[in-house]
Amino acid sequence: MQQAFIHHVFFWLKEPANETHKKQLAEGLQKLSAVATIKTYHIGQPAATSREVIDSSYSLSWLLTFETAADQDSYQVDPIHLDFVKTCSHLWQKVVVYDTISL
Amino acid sequence: MQQAFIHHVFFWLKEPANETHKKQLAEGLQKLSAVATIKTYHIGQPAATSREVIDSSYSLSWLLTFETAADQDSYQVDPIHLDFVKTCSHLWQKVVVYDTISL
Repeated sequence: MQQAFIHHVFFWLKEPANETHKKQLAEGLQKLSAVATIKTYHIGQPAATSREVIDSSYSLSWLLTFETAADQDSYQVDPIHLDFVKTCSHLWQKVVVYDTISL
Repeated sequence: MQQAFIHHVFFWLKEPANETHKKQLAEGLQKLSAVATIKTYHIGQPAATSREVIDSSYSLSWLLTFETAADQDSYQVDPIHLDFVKTCSHLWQKVVVYDTISL
């Protein structure tokens, strides 16, 4: 992978077993992927792997790459992102974000 | 991004301020990237972003994509991977892994 700014978000739903909520969040992320500064995106769920070090307790994963840190800053305040937060934030109880830049 | 198996590992060094240890781990990951089933890899460090939801306490990020779950299984037992664990595991105090498949 080339130089990149990676923004990896994990969502824990308030109701993890509620498939409708999971679908609503996934649809919200799909709409969110329209933000112009996003280079690549991936919407995922925990794999079936199981070892002590693996955290598979989250509901959905949202992995973005940006070309620059500035592009990620721009994403944070993009109207599409603000709308996503307004529309979907009632669905989750916890979010953990890892922002990573190339060494 | 196409269908993918994402394997995202975060390392916390025993001595986070030890730049030699950080370099050793980064070099070990660079060697580890030779595993044939890896599709893409990214070695990173925390970005300068800071919000309540962001965890920037880790030392290094190791983000892999595989085409299939079977390719990731194969990576786990690859001799290059086993050698990496033997050579570098004394450097870290904690590892957290998130395995994610496409929705």
